[in-house]
Amino acid sequence: MKTPIAIGIDFGGTTIKCALIEEGRIIHRGEVIETHRSGDSAAIIDALFSRIVDLQRVCPETVAIGVGLPGITDSVNGIVHRLSNVPGWNEVPLRDILRRRTGLHVAIENDAKSMAYAEWKYGAAKRGENVVCITLGTGVGGGLILNRRLYRGSFLGAGEIGQMSIDYKGIPGNYGNPGAFEKYVGNAQIAERAQKLYEKAGKLVPIEQCTPAALDDAAQAGDPVACQLWGQLGIEIGTALSNAVWLLNPDTIVIGGGVARAGELLFAPIRQTIRALTMPIFYENLVIVPAALGNDAGVIGSASVALDSLPGPA
Amino acid sequence: MKTPIAIGIDFGGTTIKCALIEEGRIIHRGEVIETHRSGDSAAIIDALFSRIVDLQRVCPETVAIGVGLPGITDSVNGIVHRLSNVPGWNEVPLRDILRRRTGLHVAIENDAKSMAYAEWKYGAAKRGENVVCITLGTGVGGGLILNRRLYRGSFLGAGEIGQMSIDYKGIPGNYGNPGAFEKYVGNAQIAERAQKLYEKAGKLVPIEQCTPAALDDAAQAGDPVACQLWGQLGIEIGTALSNAVWLLNPDTIVIGGGVARAGELLFAPIRQTIRALTMPIFYENLVIVPAALGNDAGVIGSASVALDSLPGPA
Repeated sequence: MKTPIAIGIDFGGTTIKCALIEEGRIIHRGEVIETHRSGDSAAIIDALFSRIVDLQRVCPETVAIGVGLPGITDSVNGIVHRLSNVPGWNEVPLRDILRRRTGLHVAIENDAKSMAYAEWKYGAAKRGENVVCITLGTGVGGGLILNRRLYRGSFLGAGEIGQMSIDYKGIPGNYGNPGAFEKYVGNAQIAERAQKLYEKAGKLVPIEQCTPAALDDAAQAGDPVACQLWGQLGIEIGTALSNAVWLLNPDTIVIGGGVARAGELLFAPIRQTIRALTMPIFYENLVIVPAALGNDAGVIGSASVALDSLPGPA
Repeated sequence: MKTPIAIGIDFGGTTIKCALIEEGRIIHRGEVIETHRSGDSAAIIDALFSRIVDLQRVCPETVAIGVGLPGITDSVNGIVHRLSNVPGWNEVPLRDILRRRTGLHVAIENDAKSMAYAEWKYGAAKRGENVVCITLGTGVGGGLILNRRLYRGSFLGAGEIGQMSIDYKGIPGNYGNPGAFEKYVGNAQIAERAQKLYEKAGKLVPIEQCTPAALDDAAQAGDPVACQLWGQLGIEIGTALSNAVWLLNPDTIVIGGGVARAGELLFAPIRQTIRALTMPIFYENLVIVPAALGNDAGVIGSASVALDSLPGPA
C-alpha cells in the first residue's frame, strides 16, 4: 500500500507556510503567504486555497489537509474561535470551508499542539509515552502527549504551560494571571532583561541586539552578561517545567523555539533545576531534549494530525 | 451475572481500614488496624491477612483485594517503595505477598490515586472525562483521571499537585522545592496561620483549637479571623488549581479532605480565583465540587482499582 500524502499548513502571525508531507518528511514546499499583506480572513482563505491547488498539481494523490493555527481552535468542530496575532478571525468554520472547496479531508489544530504531535511522532520525542513540549518565542506555547495520544483537555485548551504561574504575586500575564511563566521568558522580556543587565555592567546595547540569537552568540563567545542571563532563564524555565513534572510525571520534555538554540547554556541549568526541585522517580529517567524538527514542526505536525484523523481503516 | 465483590484496604499512617465493596458500595466493614501499634511491616502484613480472612468468611465469593497506600507505590510491579509516615516499608513486594497468601487477585495503588478513582467512578466526578482531584490534609495529595482513565505518568508518580510551586522564591517543600503548595494549605500550616491571625486580632487561641474543623465552626458562626483565613486559603488553592487548569483543561475538580468541609466559605474564593486567573473556555464549563465519598473513598477506590484490573473479560 502507498503511504498517504497530506498538505500541512503552518499558519503563523507573520507567514503561512505549506508543504506536502509523507511519513513526517517534507517532499515539496509551497510558496509562503505573508499573513498581514493578504487582507481579511476571506482573502487569506483564497490564498490558502490557491496554495492547496498548486500543491495538488504537484501531487494529485494528496488525501488530506492539516492546518495548525496560533490561537483558540476547536479541532473537533473545525472552528477557529480566535487567532492570537491575526485580526478578523472570529468563529471561522475553516475546516468545512476548506473541505467544501477542495473535497479533501481537513483537520485544524492549535499550532503548539501540532508541533508537539510532530516532535512526538517524528522528532525529538519519538519513543515517548508521556511528553511535555514547550515552544519559547514571543510567548510560550505548549502541547502534551499523554498515553501516546495528543491530549487536548475537555474543552480543547490543554497545554498552556506559558500561562502557568511561577509566582502567585508576580508579573501579570495576558489573562490577569500573576506570575505567568511566559512573562519571564518571552522574547521581548528576554531582550529587556538583557539590556538592563548590560546597562548594569556599564554597557549600552541596543534592544535589537538582544534577541535570543544574538545572546546565544554572545554567550558562546564568553560574554558574562549573556551567560548569566541564560543561567537565570534556565532556572525559571526549569521551575515552570518542574510544576508540569510533579503533575504529569512525563518521560520526555521537548523544548523548541529560538531560545532553545542556546543549547547546553540553557539545558544544563534547566536539568539542574528540575533535579533540585523534584525527586528521583521524576527526574532519573526524564529526558530533556531540544526540538528536532525546527521550523518544519508546524507543517509536519498539522499534516500528520490530518492523516491520523482520516476516517475508517487506513 | 453476579457483580464481583472485592476487599478494599485503605492503609493510612494512623489507621488501616478495610471493607467489602460491591459496585462502589460498602457492604461490610472489617475491624480497623492501628497502624503504629502493629509493629513492623511483617506484623502489619499479618494483621492485614487476618482481616482479609475475616472478610472472606463474611463473603467467600470475594474475587480481588485492592490496597491504597500513602507513599510511593509501583502499581505495575506491585511494590511499595516507601511510605510517607510509616517506617520500615522499603521495597516491599506487597502485591505478591498478599497474592501468595490469599490466592486472590491483588492490586496496590497510591492512596490519592485510589481516592481519585473512587470519586470519578462512584462519587463527585461521575461523568467527568478529565478530572483533577486533590485531598487537603497534613499534606496535599492529588490524582488525575484523563480521558476517562486513571493517569499514573511514565514512572507512576503523577498527580503530585501538593508539590507544585505557587511561588518560585517561596516556602521550601519536602523536596527543597520552593513554594510547594502544600506548605501553604496543609493542616499544620493552617493552624499556625490561624493562631497568628488571632494573635494579631488580640486573641490568644491554643493551636489545638485551630484545626480545620474548629476554624470551619468559627467561620460559620461569623468569626472574622476564620472567615478571612478561609478566603486567603481559597485564593492559594485557586492559584495552584489554576496551574493545573491551564495545563490540563479539566471538566471537573474534586476537593476532599478535612479542609474541604468548610464548603462555600472555601469554594467561593476558589471558584472566583480560577475565574480571575484563567479564561472562559477553561472555567465556563468547569465544575468544582467537594468530594462525595468522604473517608470511604480509600476503601472504595482501592477495591475498584483491583476489580478493574482483573485479567480477562469481566
